[in-house]
Amino acid sequence: MKEVRYFYVPNAANTNELPTEEATHAVRVLRLKSGDEIYLMDGEGTFFQAEVTLASQKHCLYNIKKAIPQEKTWNSKIHLAIAPTKDIGRIEWLVEKVTEVGFDEISFLNCKFSERKSLRSDRIERIVVSAMKQSRKPWKPIVNELINFDDFINKDFKGAKYICHCYNEIEKIDFFNSINLQTTENITVLIGPEGDFSIDEVRKALANGYQSVTLGNSRLRTETAGLAAVMMANLSRRI
Amino acid sequence: MKEVRYFYVPNAANTNELPTEEATHAVRVLRLKSGDEIYLMDGEGTFFQAEVTLASQKHCLYNIKKAIPQEKTWNSKIHLAIAPTKDIGRIEWLVEKVTEVGFDEISFLNCKFSERKSLRSDRIERIVVSAMKQSRKPWKPIVNELINFDDFINKDFKGAKYICHCYNEIEKIDFFNSINLQTTENITVLIGPEGDFSIDEVRKALANGYQSVTLGNSRLRTETAGLAAVMMANLSRRI
Repeated sequence: MKEVRYFYVPNAANTNELPTEEATHAVRVLRLKSGDEIYLMDGEGTFFQAEVTLASQKHCLYNIKKAIPQEKTWNSKIHLAIAPTKDIGRIEWLVEKVTEVGFDEISFLNCKFSERKSLRSDRIERIVVSAMKQSRKPWKPIVNELINFDDFINKDFKGAKYICHCYNEIEKIDFFNSINLQTTENITVLIGPEGDFSIDEVRKALANGYQSVTLGNSRLRTETAGLAAVMMANLSRRI
Repeated sequence: MKEVRYFYVPNAANTNELPTEEATHAVRVLRLKSGDEIYLMDGEGTFFQAEVTLASQKHCLYNIKKAIPQEKTWNSKIHLAIAPTKDIGRIEWLVEKVTEVGFDEISFLNCKFSERKSLRSDRIERIVVSAMKQSRKPWKPIVNELINFDDFINKDFKGAKYICHCYNEIEKIDFFNSINLQTTENITVLIGPEGDFSIDEVRKALANGYQSVTLGNSRLRTETAGLAAVMMANLSRRI
């Protein structure tokens, strides 16, 4: 069975050429030639069956044969905002996994106790695109640059907003129960760094309309908490 | 704040010495001395507050001060049986994550399409113990050796048994819905290799009382499917 080749092409229907990085992969690595069949994903929910019309050293042109729109499998906008871990491998792993499971947007928070203060979002983008292809998901999650915690919580997000933390002195409700009781389309959930949010950060978030939540009784690492939150949100909004 | 040191000591209440590997870590790496406070976890649900009474090059003796039994946070026995991935790092990652989330037993399946036919279970054991400490879980999941698929499904497990697969020609029910509708304590769930189970393997499992299930509409890698299954099982049996 011939393997199906997927390429990420933003606005695929209105262009006829693979972006540079995808073209290089198509021509130099996969050695595709004129006449070969490829599949495009536009990042907005549509696959396109296409045929290579020209493959040169630097360019790969295509002709679309058929648009194949996909039904989204969860009816919400899941936005994960998380403090990157000291070990960047753990965050990269998280990004791969949440893309496989299905979510919509990721932000990276610079918090008081953050052990990592910078992040290469181009690397994160690449992991997202790779996981989209691997899991055959034509929706591209939005990847945002690192942002200061205060700036993030001052933004005006629609829908339900949650902050996960471990402080016993601040009352918490259960995240999964809460999202199951609601029907709001937009879910924003904040996960802190290895040393948790500061208690001031939690209080500021609550003052900005975030709900104080727990993911359960297990003590989870940052990246595991991020994945658990996305899995729960996706599970509660499955179509 | 002084960091609390955890050690895994099977049958901790009936002995007074750390196992060799733990003793080496305590004495040579952490440089603990007589009089230092340590915490033990017995793998069966109890923490023990203890004091080091002797720390030599090869031995670390302790005296238990207090037993602190823990309540289990999920009321089921979750048994994950999974085909190890070609890239062993992915399975090691899975083992860390399912231990953090909370489960009871893991088996490794040698399937028709398995890309990996061997596994060092001592390495898996070490990852389990490390994740138990990190997530402060005093229950040790059981780690079984690699077993042939046929031998596994011929075993007589109690409770509900499930096989996850991707064959459209075999009817599937939803795993999460199914476990939520049941009250059985024991849940056994099978996850196949990168190339899925063979259709014969799926049919054999069904003939042996396994239910044919899907984890949802997302196309998940083997290790992501394993974690998703455990997260769903844990979520449906939270206390």
